Amino acid sequence: MKPINDVATLFENQRAVRAFSDRPVDDTTVTEVIRAATHAPSSQNAQPWRFIVVRDPAQKAVMSEVYEECFLQVYGAGAPARADGRQPWTQVPVLIVCCIGVQGRPNIATGASIYPAVQNLMLRARSLGLGTVMTTLFRLQRDRFHEILGIPEGWEAAAIIPLGWPDRNYGPNHRPPVDEVVMRDRWTEPQPNL
Amino acid sequence: MKPINDVATLFENQRAVRAFSDRPVDDTTVTEVIRAATHAPSSQNAQPWRFIVVRDPAQKAVMSEVYEECFLQVYGAGAPARADGRQPWTQVPVLIVCCIGVQGRPNIATGASIYPAVQNLMLRARSLGLGTVMTTLFRLQRDRFHEILGIPEGWEAAAIIPLGWPDRNYGPNHRPPVDEVVMRDRWTEPQPNL
Repeated sequence: MKPINDVATLFENQRAVRAFSDRPVDDTTVTEVIRAATHAPSSQNAQPWRFIVVRDPAQKAVMSEVYEECFLQVYGAGAPARADGRQPWTQVPVLIVCCIGVQGRPNIATGASIYPAVQNLMLRARSLGLGTVMTTLFRLQRDRFHEILGIPEGWEAAAIIPLGWPDRNYGPNHRPPVDEVVMRDRWTEPQPNL
Repeated sequence: MKPINDVATLFENQRAVRAFSDRPVDDTTVTEVIRAATHAPSSQNAQPWRFIVVRDPAQKAVMSEVYEECFLQVYGAGAPARADGRQPWTQVPVLIVCCIGVQGRPNIATGASIYPAVQNLMLRARSLGLGTVMTTLFRLQRDRFHEILGIPEGWEAAAIIPLGWPDRNYGPNHRPPVDEVVMRDRWTEPQPNL
């Protein structure tokens, strides 16, 4: 994918990239995408985040195994393996575990202090021509991931972002007209079915 | 604030803007920032979002009143009014209520399908020279906001974004060195105090 440095066309060019080339991703690049993440807003500007950059093959192998169990748990053994072109995590150059400090029981708004940062990370990656994909499915085995990664009490792994140079080119994403999701002053459409 | 069309410098120039000039924000601009939002990733690409664009003064007045109650609830009557330069919502040109369709009990990962979109909205606004601020405090009075806005069962207001031309210039935001929030392969720092 070509780099994009134009904000006006950045967003429609973010795609879920689940397979990567062998080209290594250097530390300077990883630092730059995490730097972008840290400039995100957070509740009361607490910046309650930590990022675990996983490159160690042994660690990726353990994570990959548990992640595949999550897929089995949801889709069952009958699901066609790799139907979405997804590489196993063992082959992904870098996994970035995005953690948030949480006090009390998490709710929807908890995510308001981590997913803007995660989105910055993915957008900055895209601007450099790198691919990412948001994953949260691993939370089905949240306790095991926390154990594998040594995440302490009071912190939650909110997303794991595979990062690498894409296996191929990806075109823009497509969305319905904006009008279909916009209302004026109050909810005016009948309750839609998701 | 000057427009920014350079992705490399966009993120550090996002600031919380809580006061706005009288300059109106036209519908084309509002549509453009929401368009950017809709290009965000979401779980299984469900795009489970709706945006309520509030311009009606009467509706803003009611929302403003309940929002002020949320502040009282948290900070008490002793808190200096408007200490952060915050305008009341009655004076904000546009309020954008960002809603997410939710099945089952919300958790951290629920936010993964709405806050990337909200962040796109705020980043696109910043690139055009517009100010925004993420607010979730209103959820202290979630039921009343849902009633005022007519949000149906199965949907949640996840953020309300005030949008307008900033009252003044805002410089870049500042963050500690990236190294302070990055670990390698596993959690290696002692549990920090947030």
